[in-house]
Amino acid sequence: AMAKTLEDVLKEKGVITEEDYKAVTKSKPLDYKLGKGFTFNSPDEKFQMSLGARLQSRYTFTDSDGGQNTSEFRVRRMKLFMNGYAYSKDLTYKLQVNFADSGKLLEDAWLNYRLMDEAQFLVGQEKVQFARQEITSSGSQQFVDRSNATDTFKMGRDTGLMVHGKIAKGIFNYNLGVYGGVGQNTQRKFTNNAFAARVAVNPFGDMAYSEGDLDNSQKPLLSIGAGYFMDTLAKTSATALESNNLTFAGSNGWLGKGLSKFGTEKIDTNSVGIDAAFKWMGFSAQGEYFLGHANGQDTDKTLRAHGFYAQAGYFIIPKHLEVAARYSFVDPDRDKANNIQTETAGAVSYYFNKHNLKLQADVTNIHKQPARSDDMQYRLQAQIIF
Amino acid sequence: AMAKTLEDVLKEKGVITEEDYKAVTKSKPLDYKLGKGFTFNSPDEKFQMSLGARLQSRYTFTDSDGGQNTSEFRVRRMKLFMNGYAYSKDLTYKLQVNFADSGKLLEDAWLNYRLMDEAQFLVGQEKVQFARQEITSSGSQQFVDRSNATDTFKMGRDTGLMVHGKIAKGIFNYNLGVYGGVGQNTQRKFTNNAFAARVAVNPFGDMAYSEGDLDNSQKPLLSIGAGYFMDTLAKTSATALESNNLTFAGSNGWLGKGLSKFGTEKIDTNSVGIDAAFKWMGFSAQGEYFLGHANGQDTDKTLRAHGFYAQAGYFIIPKHLEVAARYSFVDPDRDKANNIQTETAGAVSYYFNKHNLKLQADVTNIHKQPARSDDMQYRLQAQIIF
Amino acid sequence: AMAKTLEDVLKEKGVITEEDYKAVTKSKPLDYKLGKGFTFNSPDEKFQMSLGARLQSRYTFTDSDGGQNTSEFRVRRMKLFMNGYAYSKDLTYKLQVNFADSGKLLEDAWLNYRLMDEAQFLVGQEKVQFARQEITSSGSQQFVDRSNATDTFKMGRDTGLMVHGKIAKGIFNYNLGVYGGVGQNTQRKFTNNAFAARVAVNPFGDMAYSEGDLDNSQKPLLSIGAGYFMDTLAKTSATALESNNLTFAGSNGWLGKGLSKFGTEKIDTNSVGIDAAFKWMGFSAQGEYFLGHANGQDTDKTLRAHGFYAQAGYFIIPKHLEVAARYSFVDPDRDKANNIQTETAGAVSYYFNKHNLKLQADVTNIHKQPARSDDMQYRLQAQIIF
Repeated sequence: AMAKTLEDVLKEKGVITEEDYKAVTKSKPLDYKLGKGFTFNSPDEKFQMSLGARLQSRYTFTDSDGGQNTSEFRVRRMKLFMNGYAYSKDLTYKLQVNFADSGKLLEDAWLNYRLMDEAQFLVGQEKVQFARQEITSSGSQQFVDRSNATDTFKMGRDTGLMVHGKIAKGIFNYNLGVYGGVGQNTQRKFTNNAFAARVAVNPFGDMAYSEGDLDNSQKPLLSIGAGYFMDTLAKTSATALESNNLTFAGSNGWLGKGLSKFGTEKIDTNSVGIDAAFKWMGFSAQGEYFLGHANGQDTDKTLRAHGFYAQAGYFIIPKHLEVAARYSFVDPDRDKANNIQTETAGAVSYYFNKHNLKLQADVTNIHKQPARSDDMQYRLQAQIIF
Repeated sequence: AMAKTLEDVLKEKGVITEEDYKAVTKSKPLDYKLGKGFTFNSPDEKFQMSLGARLQSRYTFTDSDGGQNTSEFRVRRMKLFMNGYAYSKDLTYKLQVNFADSGKLLEDAWLNYRLMDEAQFLVGQEKVQFARQEITSSGSQQFVDRSNATDTFKMGRDTGLMVHGKIAKGIFNYNLGVYGGVGQNTQRKFTNNAFAARVAVNPFGDMAYSEGDLDNSQKPLLSIGAGYFMDTLAKTSATALESNNLTFAGSNGWLGKGLSKFGTEKIDTNSVGIDAAFKWMGFSAQGEYFLGHANGQDTDKTLRAHGFYAQAGYFIIPKHLEVAARYSFVDPDRDKANNIQTETAGAVSYYFNKHNLKLQADVTNIHKQPARSDDMQYRLQAQIIF
Repeated sequence: AMAKTLEDVLKEKGVITEEDYKAVTKSKPLDYKLGKGFTFNSPDEKFQMSLGARLQSRYTFTDSDGGQNTSEFRVRRMKLFMNGYAYSKDLTYKLQVNFADSGKLLEDAWLNYRLMDEAQFLVGQEKVQFARQEITSSGSQQFVDRSNATDTFKMGRDTGLMVHGKIAKGIFNYNLGVYGGVGQNTQRKFTNNAFAARVAVNPFGDMAYSEGDLDNSQKPLLSIGAGYFMDTLAKTSATALESNNLTFAGSNGWLGKGLSKFGTEKIDTNSVGIDAAFKWMGFSAQGEYFLGHANGQDTDKTLRAHGFYAQAGYFIIPKHLEVAARYSFVDPDRDKANNIQTETAGAVSYYFNKHNLKLQADVTNIHKQPARSDDMQYRLQAQIIF
């Protein structure tokens, strides 16, 4: 027999009315929300906190073409999160840490004030709002992880101030942000801050940043977006910037890979992305095109990079079993020949409970110039949000 | 319509009496306390845990006199705390971590046993009880952060054993502690432990360590205190001590700055502080004077430092809008000329909900000898305890 | 007067029946369980989370025979844990971090699926199931910490996949695991994974991994176990392996101590352990014997280590006051003379509330060859699980 609540019993006995029942059960002090963890509500309803965590446990076998094969077990992400509202439902907050990455432990630490849906103000650290797939949580992907194109052009997290809003119930969304410009958990040594802008148009209604048509949408959903980011970073030694914490400036980013082009000077960077996503009846498709441009202030040398990915998925068993395919292309220096990296991937995902509990497998052919090597990467991942 | 509790409904209907109502609502399993976060109570009332976090998100512009200007966004503090009692109300505990400082992640980790109010025993890691402004939480300051004098002479955290108590309901408070003597998350390699003592007299009744007269006190509050700390630290190389984790021994501390005076020897240090704080009708004033003395065991060289700060604030709008001014003076080596640093600062704070939700701005003139440079520092900070 | 619950009052008044009372109090939304912390239950009973922490605050004085004495205060362990089940009672999880060890912050991060008691599958990071005393939590020891033999031969944590089960209600337990083979929070650069197997036979019924007969068992409990572990690790420089995160390969492990024997080559290692534990009427005894064997793939050099410990305890005051004695022997290289380390220790423990709240003191004579030095180590430790 299922456990009953005291409220159920008292309603059955007629001690409290149907109306009383609704009033007293409107807000539970303690509740569980799928994908959000346990939620606590204060008696005065002014405070709410959701406490939960997300685990990604992964196995990767890499069959290297000419190099060392690897067989790797890894806790890829182990994130603890606390979010909710405080003092007012218009003042929301988030704390998120990733215990699986002790070098970048603190991820989100922000406070958001909603003046109205159309005008909101966020201060603190969070993801730079630029690329669709980066904004989409690593927990809401239809592959085991993001595309190589996204990982080459994304910014990752930074600290700053953002103005953002949803207009006409999310048909038009915007974000304008000013950031330190040196990335996660790092501070500026200069006055060169970064600026980001992003717009998204959702003609058939607001569309969440989540991959795969998990809801088997009966009416089509479409989102078209564009992002822009500018930042000036000082190259302080032969091989390093003042900070490589912004992903595009790190060792796998387009700027990080092309650093040798520049002297020890300040480098002006501009990044542009356009993207679209579509979902209908279990089918989903998504793609982004990125442009990166960097210019040395002293040498006037220029680095031009571009890349894109396109992916599509379909649910064979609605809401549960999905197959997906992806192609990703990155040219980190358009003025240099033979340095392109392409990835072709296929994925199968079983969603026990949406993105909250799922098993995913993917296979990726990683083709790298100039060696024209073809590594094969096999990944299997379990994810749970508890 | 506000949500009602089941207890409310049953009392209205006369199912339970007023007395029953009081008995069953005496202890809520789940509650929210301002500044403390969500609080959980065990059914047997022997266990309580408060879970919350504190975020400080800051912007700093430094107009450097002759150096590099900086424009910095920073999550200055992102602290998670769990505290309460366990097994008995006399056995309290605290865990606090600061995710914004991964190098000093673990802050508080202690267990306190109250034999009586007058005699309590604490084991574990916590702040060394020496300077008033250091004991006052970084979340309860009337400026954006502590004074330079405090930051030069304070100890920070250490691990040890403390005997402390409140006598005559807090009119006289004392703390006696023995610590490892090498600071936060660090262990001794020698037998030289540290000893600290602090007394505070509060003639008009106990006065919490919190800046600003946020309660618009109708009767005056006064506290006079004194602290003493002795420690022996080995200088193990030309530029370093065995540990620089005690703040006064670190790069910005008086001992850290004067290290070159000594050989690679053991250094006996003594620190003394006297302080006072006053609050009345929205006005508050506070000041401390510090003395530092270090003596090399082999060379018999001596380093003598002193410093002080004085600050005052007044609420223009009681409980909400405060202005404050501060002067800080530090001479890290009294036997050397032209090495004084003074700071003159003004602050405006808006307290939406005491220190739990506030916006603070301050401007500081930082005057440094021998260059006689005058840097101007502008800071803006939002704080929330959720 | 104790606080009553609403359910108590309504039962007393006859508003709800005894049966109703049982139904509505069967599952409390919020509860406290000794040693587990606060427990939250979702209204649908499909989700449960326990949130708690464990603090070990320790003082150690070492009277070194010919070396430097030390007097050390230390927060030895400050662990936060969240565990429970999600989506189904058969899907359990655990997150545990140790804030006192920022280099090895993330400890447990796993997901376990119970198909039946006899066949369970665990993915993620946890302790390698090899040695009895290592599997026994550091919080459930009858000495202040584990024996030197265990610390020399144990693996510590690794990431992988485990199949395990309890057969005949725990009379026979088994664990088979495949792991990355490079230890906690570290990933493989080769294809050489590790394999572990452990069996335990508990002829008088399942016996938890916890030292000391805290329950004053009226009938005897016995457990006999054996473990096996194989791993291949590459020696990548004159003094280091590809990873020293597995404890036996670290600076205090048998392989770590004997590394100089090998060239920069791959080293095949095999570890074997046999162990037994017994409890009855307040008496407990436990011992393990370990063998380590390493062979260089290129040089064909061999390293052979062995060691053991035996310990026994008895409760002078049942369930509360225990005395214990231990002997530990380690020979990290059986082909080399004069390199044995033995430890002889005595302990007194007062358990206020089992292992959840206890005070422990122990004294250890540490005898090391070839110097034949006898260090004396005195430790005092308070532990609380809150």
